[in-house]
Amino acid sequence: MVFLFMSIKVGILGATGYTGVRLFSILLKHPEVRIRWITSEKYAGKEITEPLPCFKNISNIVCSSVRDLERLEKVDLVFSCLPDGISMKFVNKLYETGIKLIDLSPDLRFSDPEIYRQTFGIKHRYPELLVKSVYGLSEINRKKIRQSVLVSNPGCYSTSVLLPLIPLLRRKDLFDKKFVIDIKASVSGAGRAPRPQFHFPEININTTAENISGHTQKFEIQNIIRETSGEIYESIFTTHMMPLNRGILATVYLKLSDSGIKADEIFGILKNCFAREQFIRIIYPDRLPALNDVCGSNYLDIGFELQDNFLIIVSALDNLIKGASGQAVQNMNIMFGFPENSGLENVPYYV
Amino acid sequence: MVFLFMSIKVGILGATGYTGVRLFSILLKHPEVRIRWITSEKYAGKEITEPLPCFKNISNIVCSSVRDLERLEKVDLVFSCLPDGISMKFVNKLYETGIKLIDLSPDLRFSDPEIYRQTFGIKHRYPELLVKSVYGLSEINRKKIRQSVLVSNPGCYSTSVLLPLIPLLRRKDLFDKKFVIDIKASVSGAGRAPRPQFHFPEININTTAENISGHTQKFEIQNIIRETSGEIYESIFTTHMMPLNRGILATVYLKLSDSGIKADEIFGILKNCFAREQFIRIIYPDRLPALNDVCGSNYLDIGFELQDNFLIIVSALDNLIKGASGQAVQNMNIMFGFPENSGLENVPYYV
Amino acid sequence: MVFLFMSIKVGILGATGYTGVRLFSILLKHPEVRIRWITSEKYAGKEITEPLPCFKNISNIVCSSVRDLERLEKVDLVFSCLPDGISMKFVNKLYETGIKLIDLSPDLRFSDPEIYRQTFGIKHRYPELLVKSVYGLSEINRKKIRQSVLVSNPGCYSTSVLLPLIPLLRRKDLFDKKFVIDIKASVSGAGRAPRPQFHFPEININTTAENISGHTQKFEIQNIIRETSGEIYESIFTTHMMPLNRGILATVYLKLSDSGIKADEIFGILKNCFAREQFIRIIYPDRLPALNDVCGSNYLDIGFELQDNFLIIVSALDNLIKGASGQAVQNMNIMFGFPENSGLENVPYYV
Amino acid sequence: MVFLFMSIKVGILGATGYTGVRLFSILLKHPEVRIRWITSEKYAGKEITEPLPCFKNISNIVCSSVRDLERLEKVDLVFSCLPDGISMKFVNKLYETGIKLIDLSPDLRFSDPEIYRQTFGIKHRYPELLVKSVYGLSEINRKKIRQSVLVSNPGCYSTSVLLPLIPLLRRKDLFDKKFVIDIKASVSGAGRAPRPQFHFPEININTTAENISGHTQKFEIQNIIRETSGEIYESIFTTHMMPLNRGILATVYLKLSDSGIKADEIFGILKNCFAREQFIRIIYPDRLPALNDVCGSNYLDIGFELQDNFLIIVSALDNLIKGASGQAVQNMNIMFGFPENSGLENVPYYV
Repeated sequence: MVFLFMSIKVGILGATGYTGVRLFSILLKHPEVRIRWITSEKYAGKEITEPLPCFKNISNIVCSSVRDLERLEKVDLVFSCLPDGISMKFVNKLYETGIKLIDLSPDLRFSDPEIYRQTFGIKHRYPELLVKSVYGLSEINRKKIRQSVLVSNPGCYSTSVLLPLIPLLRRKDLFDKKFVIDIKASVSGAGRAPRPQFHFPEININTTAENISGHTQKFEIQNIIRETSGEIYESIFTTHMMPLNRGILATVYLKLSDSGIKADEIFGILKNCFAREQFIRIIYPDRLPALNDVCGSNYLDIGFELQDNFLIIVSALDNLIKGASGQAVQNMNIMFGFPENSGLENVPYYV
Repeated sequence: MVFLFMSIKVGILGATGYTGVRLFSILLKHPEVRIRWITSEKYAGKEITEPLPCFKNISNIVCSSVRDLERLEKVDLVFSCLPDGISMKFVNKLYETGIKLIDLSPDLRFSDPEIYRQTFGIKHRYPELLVKSVYGLSEINRKKIRQSVLVSNPGCYSTSVLLPLIPLLRRKDLFDKKFVIDIKASVSGAGRAPRPQFHFPEININTTAENISGHTQKFEIQNIIRETSGEIYESIFTTHMMPLNRGILATVYLKLSDSGIKADEIFGILKNCFAREQFIRIIYPDRLPALNDVCGSNYLDIGFELQDNFLIIVSALDNLIKGASGQAVQNMNIMFGFPENSGLENVPYYV
Repeated sequence: MVFLFMSIKVGILGATGYTGVRLFSILLKHPEVRIRWITSEKYAGKEITEPLPCFKNISNIVCSSVRDLERLEKVDLVFSCLPDGISMKFVNKLYETGIKLIDLSPDLRFSDPEIYRQTFGIKHRYPELLVKSVYGLSEINRKKIRQSVLVSNPGCYSTSVLLPLIPLLRRKDLFDKKFVIDIKASVSGAGRAPRPQFHFPEININTTAENISGHTQKFEIQNIIRETSGEIYESIFTTHMMPLNRGILATVYLKLSDSGIKADEIFGILKNCFAREQFIRIIYPDRLPALNDVCGSNYLDIGFELQDNFLIIVSALDNLIKGASGQAVQNMNIMFGFPENSGLENVPYYV
Repeated sequence: MVFLFMSIKVGILGATGYTGVRLFSILLKHPEVRIRWITSEKYAGKEITEPLPCFKNISNIVCSSVRDLERLEKVDLVFSCLPDGISMKFVNKLYETGIKLIDLSPDLRFSDPEIYRQTFGIKHRYPELLVKSVYGLSEINRKKIRQSVLVSNPGCYSTSVLLPLIPLLRRKDLFDKKFVIDIKASVSGAGRAPRPQFHFPEININTTAENISGHTQKFEIQNIIRETSGEIYESIFTTHMMPLNRGILATVYLKLSDSGIKADEIFGILKNCFAREQFIRIIYPDRLPALNDVCGSNYLDIGFELQDNFLIIVSALDNLIKGASGQAVQNMNIMFGFPENSGLENVPYYV
């Protein structure tokens, strides 16, 4: 039942990139939200339908510029889909006005300024934001998110890997302290700006390895695992670009310790942890996650298998939804006390 | 505002093909509908998640068999997504019980049994159904649909071509009486059953011409144009299969008569006809329809251009939504007095 | 049998675009050719493997700049894959030195400077080149090509349409004088430079109509038909961009005149015309051309069907081979008296 | 220089599957080979162009049935592309006649019948064939292949993994004895027969994990590593199916032992091993292998990077060429003393 008086006003910084468009699309149909403004530097002053004709008859909102941030209507919540390095600047400015914020950039994903510095190679300009922000892994940090005014939305790869790992690694000593993460990624994750390697003919019948010497989300994952398990795990992390618009399939390889844990116990741990979670589905046994089953939705599917003395976890999500904008809306729902699946009930599009 | 007491009970015959799955997905989230049963001969007795794991946590409905039709719960409306030839049999059986029906098969798309016979080469077994059914082209036949108990849902190609043509051909003598329809189709339109020519490697980097000696929807189009314009137009009709899951792009070539109609007048006719239609968007000037702008939604986009003395119309829709299940739900909304966009507010998925 | 002393020396202007790369690949394996230099403005001074690592272990030729044209080794033949407007300038410079030339740009495809001006909207700067160049439609102009020193390679769309049409339209009065050409094109035809609309996620699950108010190749086609048939035919011409790397599928709609020609006669005309042509295959009856059957090869497949009183022709080719570089090599083979299929024996890659 | 008198006569068992078609295509253009017969149970008695119209004007060979094996012309070499379990039966029959053989099935890839039994779960019916066959990893086993009459062609995954690993693992104690293999595979590897999960719409925008509890090629790899390194290594092995027609990208994760080997030393080992190999390319530094650079050719590209104390190797090949038919032809060239790249000079098709 919709109580209109409960609805909140939101703004979106950077609404015309792939993450911003998806966020805008979800919020447009969210029963408790009214989008008051969106920004786009490239299309400031123009209707959203100019860069995105798919919104014709749906919205004719006009894009603003972040340079006019002070003159924009006061809202209850701002989402930032600005690029890394730039996002923090505007988040900081808005934070000081007391507004609630969800930052989808990687700028605030480390609570410790020193780890940020080690990961990005530069000193953080707003270290106090790091301390104050809550890491928005919805199912894990729900309580903190509920009370927070500044949420840092997790990375897409991190979300796909952390959700299955956290409950398992909270159990002490099940696995060796070093594991391998092999990500299969899709091109929307690289953003909307054309690049030679993602010109259609270059990637359409192609697949490449990327980031095989590491990635900032490797450290995001390690950091959150340390915080949630209380122990230090290290990961080897790679990504591979596939000819796909949407979706991440993550394969994680964990060597069993002498614990000799069985598949049924793994299943039990995952099931217990996520039994009441609508958006986390444990696919076991007989099947494995597939992008078709999650893309278009906020679901994360988790499957696994033991092979020799390794646990192999496979997880799948839509990088633009559960890996970014869907999870951001889920965090908003938590922050404002809306039903957690509000606006997120889309069924996977499957084909 | 949702009045729960208004909700209706529906059943779906043939719910596990591509059209049935899409219909099921839309109805699951429709605020005024409760799905009471679905049938699937292949998966009778099994949960929907068995063939379609994407529905895990969303629905665990168990598929019934059409053979048990008599024992299924009485509902307010039945959709038939059964194959042609088979659908009519069950529609007839249900029709006699007084239930409302929407048939997505091509079985009832001709009101004249003789034209059916000419088109399909066989005599119709239930000619009285032809007479009683209403052709469910929502925007054109809204009044008849509202009063009908049996709607025959239009073909996907027909929908893409008829909607732009009907307002133009209602004007007398603007065009020659023969025009060309060149369809670019996608593989979901060929159904969910594997076939050698649609095995992934065979079509992934391929495109083929099909149906170049004609297609039953050619006659469906001609027939409806005759009924709506009062004149006889003939079409040359072809389809081409592209490596796409979803979407139809139709290009129609009409030779101008001596009328010498101008582009602005074309625009005026289309705009007037569809000004109050949410789902029909006239894309003009400066742009042309594209599948990305409609797929995932119930929109039909129409663009056009004059070249020499020809009018070229381009239209785009999602074959499983506006071309099938979305229009079926739109027809249901009309039949039952629900808001016409109820359950159909999905934004195009764009990328 | 290979006579090494017969081999010729060639240069390629603009070798790192899609057409240039394909030409370079074919010539590398051509038994009678030694590539002495290639130019690339972007990669001048660098090995070909820098922009194109696929050539590692195959060629380490260093790219030159066209600005150094005078200092490059004297060769027997130069191919120009430079962009339109630029190509003519360098072709003119080389033509004056007496070297043989094949121009793959659209700069010299009209023998009449006035028709060039009407088509491109500007006066041609080297009208004498137009007069002297031979239109390199290999199977049709073989005799002229053999004696020429300057060949203008046909457009990809033109090749796909002209080859089936010329023998049919040489017969007087079989068809109306106006016909429709509906092209299904692939992204490599738009070149190697990234563009927003061909960024992978924008076109991967998309199809768009383009050029529906016309295209310069429409006039190229009309012009050659006039020259070969002695009559004036007009065409309506559109292209549609599909999510494909390679290939053109052309559908042509011709209205039969009162001649009432039969399918078997059509087949006879095509078969007679191309009976001794290795690269032209008439696909009739029972099948239709498909990109899978031609891509990767120099074949052009032609199929057709009568529908009502229209002839529908479908043709398929690889836009980078028979539609560009393959036909250029075929023309070279003709000019130098090599076996016409020399270097062009690649089997379609099929999957 | 082509000496026609040197040409050999060959036959292909099972020529109309994806591997067989590719082998047939390569051999058709091989200067030293005349294909005397091919078999296909499904198309016995029919021309190859019936199932494969791409061969029109190229070959009109008529398919035979294996049941007529005794009546087929005596040839110098037979390739078997028959399915596993069936291939061995016909290989055995031919072996007894003294003919040379290359078996592309997995039937003879283990020299030890006991390891075969452990891997496939059944006793081998022709254990003497196992003993007599040579494992056809061309660059590694060249000497044995040259003297052999029966070559067992390696698996596609095995080829992609073994070639980079063998030189590294021959060095003792560089790495831990357990490593992870994560394969990105393409649909042609699953064969030409339609299957529900490879129906176009099911896999086109999808990616799935497969074989995560293991695969017979895991044991093939371990077995050959044991034979070439003299030590026992174990692997964790998974495959992932991508929406691609062709290509394998393999990522291998090896934990460094205390050896502390440096990237330059890795490079040195690989370079030394493959310095004189045309088909093996070490991509290092600055780049990584990509399918576009190898598909359509017999090349295998190897790249690598150190991340923490892991060596990550990435290799890429065309599963139908270097991973199957190309390597089979390379083995034939070795067996018969032809230039090793004869018939295999195709440049990668790149786009």
